[in-house]
This record gives sequence, C-alpha cells and structure tokens, in this order.
Amino acid sequence: MAARPKQRRNSERRNREDEVMDAAVAVFSEKGYSAASLQDVADTVGLLKGSLYHYISSKESLLFRIFDEAHAQALILMAEVDELQLPPDGKLRAYVERLSLWYLGNRQRASLYFTEWRYLTGEYETSVRAQRREFEMYVRTILIEAQEAGLTRDDLDARVTTSYILSAVNSVPIWYRPGGPLEPEELARQVAELSYQSAFGRSKARKLRAS
Amino acid sequence: MAARPKQRRNSERRNREDEVMDAAVAVFSEKGYSAASLQDVADTVGLLKGSLYHYISSKESLLFRIFDEAHAQALILMAEVDELQLPPDGKLRAYVERLSLWYLGNRQRASLYFTEWRYLTGEYETSVRAQRREFEMYVRTILIEAQEAGLTRDDLDARVTTSYILSAVNSVPIWYRPGGPLEPEELARQVAELSYQSAFGRSKARKLRAS
Repeated sequence: MAARPKQRRNSERRNREDEVMDAAVAVFSEKGYSAASLQDVADTVGLLKGSLYHYISSKESLLFRIFDEAHAQALILMAEVDELQLPPDGKLRAYVERLSLWYLGNRQRASLYFTEWRYLTGEYETSVRAQRREFEMYVRTILIEAQEAGLTRDDLDARVTTSYILSAVNSVPIWYRPGGPLEPEELARQVAELSYQSAFGRSKARKLRAS
Repeated sequence: MAARPKQRRNSERRNREDEVMDAAVAVFSEKGYSAASLQDVADTVGLLKGSLYHYISSKESLLFRIFDEAHAQALILMAEVDELQLPPDGKLRAYVERLSLWYLGNRQRASLYFTEWRYLTGEYETSVRAQRREFEMYVRTILIEAQEAGLTRDDLDARVTTSYILSAVNSVPIWYRPGGPLEPEELARQVAELSYQSAFGRSKARKLRAS
C-alpha cells in the first residue's frame, strides 16, 4: 500500500507480504499483541517461522507496519477531503464520514491501532507518536479555522473538542458489531452528523437566532 | 465504598483494604493488568504476598473489585442526577459533567476500567458486562426520552448517539494530562457541553427557527 517503499517487487512477493500483514492483523486482534507470537502469524499464513523473516524483521516491525499503513490511509482521506475545498464545518463532516467508513471496513486494523499502539518502543514509538499528532492536528486545525470564522462557541477549547470528537470516532470500530440494523454507510453518516453537532450545534442556533 | 458488603469490620482492616485497592490500581495502571503480579501489589503495600489473601482471593478478584467500586460510584451519580428532576437535555448535561469530574479525580481507576475489563472471566465478566449495560442504559434512556419529547433529530439513532457520547466521555481520563491549562471543573463543563451539543445541537436550532 501507499506507505511501503516503492522498490521493485514481483507481485508474488507482494501478495505474500499482504497475506503476512492480514495474518498479523487477525492474530494480534484475536490474542492481543503482547500474547501473540510470530509463530502464530507463521502458522496462520502457512509459512515456516524462519521464512517470515524474508518479509519482516520482528514482531514489533509487523505491528508498526500495520499502523503505518493505517496512517497512510488516513493521509489519503485527508487529501481527498482537502480537494473538496469545503468550509470548516463541511470539512469536518466529510472527513469524519470518510474516516468512519474506512474504520468500519477495516475494524480489526483500526481497533488494533487504538488498543495496542502503546506496545511500540524506540523509533517505532517515536514515529507513531508523530503520526498520531499529525492525525490529531488535521481535525484541530479545522476546528481552529472554524473558531476564527465564528462557527464554534468561544467557551469551548479547540483541543478539547478535537479530543472529544476523535475519541468518539476512533471508538466506532471497537463498539460496532456487523449484522446490526444499521449499514456501515448509514452509521458513518450518523457519526459524522454527531461530530458536526458536537462542534457546531449551538453556533448554528446562534446564527439562526440572529437572522 | 458503597459496593462492599456491610459486614462488621474494624477500621484498621478497612484502612488496610483500601491500601491494597489503591496499590492494585497503581500497579495495574503502571504495568498493565496482565503483566502485573500479586507480588507487585504486596510489595507496594508492604505486605507479604501470603498476607494479601486475608483481603482478596485472587488477582482477578482485585480487578473486579476495582470495577465494582467504580460502578457503585456511577450509580451514586445517577441517583444524584435523578433527584434533580431535570428534563432529558439538562439531565444528560448534569450527568456527563458529574461523571467527567469523577473520572478526572480518579483517572487511574477509570482508565483501567476501559482498558483492562476484557481480562475478566466467568462470573466476574458476566457481572461487569451487566454493570456496563446498566451504565449504558442510563444514557440511552435519557436519549430515548429526549427523542420522544422531540428534542433530538429523527435521523439519529439513540443507540448510536449513546455509544458516541459515552466513547468520548469514557476517553477523558485516558487523554487528560494534569497540569494543562484547564482545571478539571472547566474540562468537565466543556465535555458536558460537547455531549449536550452532540445530542441536541441541531434540534435547538430547529426550535429557534420555529419561534
């Protein structure tokens, strides 16, 4: 995917790499990262554990790559939303809807991100922390722009609103159970509306009152 | 606290029990429940590991009791808010504000609840699941009453709104860092306002438009 180095690789190797990644996501989700072993991953993908090292350097590098790919995906969503050139309120709604939909289509990967990231150490940790800051700053910047445009309440801190909304949205892949009454598209729409209301609900009222 | 059996105990034993609980909260928070041992708890409280069994039956019973006390605290908050006899929108705001403030005063306990509860098994798990349902139903019932009173949008599901708001509020003890620019009281107020807006933002606007 987008985050991997663009070195020349034949498609067989790429397919096998994708299989290893998918197996890691499944195994880490089922057992938890700390309890899972590379042997489990090898067994799931049908490789000898030694052969796994053709594709990855360690269990931790596997976890990092899962997160790295997820972040690359978030960057793509941000770029897509930026291209729509929406005002801050529409931008927040569009981004949350797309992000929620990606979460719902990738529940295991997304849940891993939020439950297991604290297991990373050293450069992996530094790198993921930087990615998380970038991820958070995207929404915070929207909310600061919204505040400057008078679209949000003065008595609500943009950082608090950002943490509030992202905590709610990031939990969607954890609490959502497929097969319920709501399709992913409808759920993503509702989560986007709730986020919109969290940030802009009252200011909308103020505007209407003024008109 | 409220959830403990009201058997006659001398205050020395009660103090020692509180010390054991506090030590368990500290140790589980620092090491994570699965990596922490009863030996760690005994060392922290300055007891021999064998003596710990005067107060608890197992590591899992200790985790359960932490959760049980937290749930008892949530029930007290619910009762206090019920006594105020507020309409649904005021009730949601009052409950979220009190809950957030409790979280901020008990960050380690509250964080443990949401990161470690999946380690419980058997009757402990069953019991905590029932408590979580009760916890969730309190907010969902408020939102259903609000929906019936026409205070919320028809196109937003009360279950989704409940999950959204509780995910955001339950994350507060995880992302809050003391010593920042906001006092706990002010942060709790903002989290309550954001929750209010999540659920009622737009309908407020609709009402104002009609008047």
